Amino acid sequence: MVRFFVPPEELTGEVLMLTGENAQHAKVLRLKTGEEALVCDGEGRECLCVVTDTAGGQFSLTVRQRRESETEAAVQVSVYMAFPKADKLEHVIQKATELGAYEIVAFPSARCVSKPDEKSLKKKLERWQKIAASAAEQSGRGRIPQVRVLPSFKAALEEAAKADKRLMFYENEQAVTLKMALTGSTYRTVSLLTGPEGGLEEKEVAQAREAGLQVCTLGKRILRCETAPLCALSAVMYDAGEF
Amino acid sequence: MVRFFVPPEELTGEVLMLTGENAQHAKVLRLKTGEEALVCDGEGRECLCVVTDTAGGQFSLTVRQRRESETEAAVQVSVYMAFPKADKLEHVIQKATELGAYEIVAFPSARCVSKPDEKSLKKKLERWQKIAASAAEQSGRGRIPQVRVLPSFKAALEEAAKADKRLMFYENEQAVTLKMALTGSTYRTVSLLTGPEGGLEEKEVAQAREAGLQVCTLGKRILRCETAPLCALSAVMYDAGEF
Repeated sequence: MVRFFVPPEELTGEVLMLTGENAQHAKVLRLKTGEEALVCDGEGRECLCVVTDTAGGQFSLTVRQRRESETEAAVQVSVYMAFPKADKLEHVIQKATELGAYEIVAFPSARCVSKPDEKSLKKKLERWQKIAASAAEQSGRGRIPQVRVLPSFKAALEEAAKADKRLMFYENEQAVTLKMALTGSTYRTVSLLTGPEGGLEEKEVAQAREAGLQVCTLGKRILRCETAPLCALSAVMYDAGEF
Repeated sequence: MVRFFVPPEELTGEVLMLTGENAQHAKVLRLKTGEEALVCDGEGRECLCVVTDTAGGQFSLTVRQRRESETEAAVQVSVYMAFPKADKLEHVIQKATELGAYEIVAFPSARCVSKPDEKSLKKKLERWQKIAASAAEQSGRGRIPQVRVLPSFKAALEEAAKADKRLMFYENEQAVTLKMALTGSTYRTVSLLTGPEGGLEEKEVAQAREAGLQVCTLGKRILRCETAPLCALSAVMYDAGEF
């Protein structure tokens, strides 16, 4: 079923009108009277609608059912990623959205070779948010993960530490596996923190431990910086019973 | 430690010489006498060596220890993927290699929009194998996964069915999760079979069941054809205790 995202304040009333890009999209899809469509607020609520009027290129949809999205994960996983090169961050945003991440948070770390400057950041965040929206639509999600940027590694640790499970992945860790970190306890929120192309510094790993993060391995093979968060996210979703 | 792959027949004797691309690579890395290096046969055996001579741009390495690779997964996971568009297959080959796949096998299915013709296939296979070799080197593997192509969907089912766990992922399956399929039994070999951009046809899913494959879901979100095999592979590696 086709899926449109609208601002939460537009998800009111018994008849919804598609506007702007949504109307464009409906036109391209040749949406017809009688067809069903989902209108979502991008925050987990959605209306199952039927198209009741398409006269004059205007699309009116009548609400049949209001409900919580049925495709959101019960577990909230925040993906914290040290800034990689631009195309890799975009890749992770798209894939992490498909895989059900709650949010994607980029932050600077010592060995980051690529950090967007203040000036370009606003435009980039808009672009990243669009990538998340498009992936959310394509994968049938009811929520668009927020893409955020933090000013420092310290800020990332402080935020990440608030989750029930707060995990940092480090290639020199050999004793503690992700499985050990997850087994035997329940969790509703998870933070996954991974490093940039050049890896995390030992000093950073020590800071993370101090902040209350658990340092784990993702196995004996060295994963690229864009592979690690997606591998960890897939495993957490699996562990949490999502598939 | 730097890692070179050589044909298995060259991994004999007490002194190994680097030739061709390996010698080139050693030159670029400015490998020096006294440094350690790993020489691997790409099939899971490796020699821990020390560089003993670099005179005249020739690199002689003396074998210190012969051993089985320490970075290969104990579980053998074969990734069977219906031909996607070219760049996606390359992406999956690279990532599945990092994640520890045993082999990557491409096959045609009803809704494939992209199938390489006989003529171009040989060249493409060479290219794909190079991508796997490069990812194996970068991720520190001792084995280069073989990239293979099968002539038919039926051939893929027949091969995939030989594994201890043989799983097909289908977006319309809702009852059986990957976790259900894996829990409560041991396995040493796994086949993961996924569809192309347009998905698998119901008829194909029925054929897979008949061939003995178990049909599972990867969750409530629709994954892109290049995301599904990597998500499943990550989860299987996690379940098998790799991380």
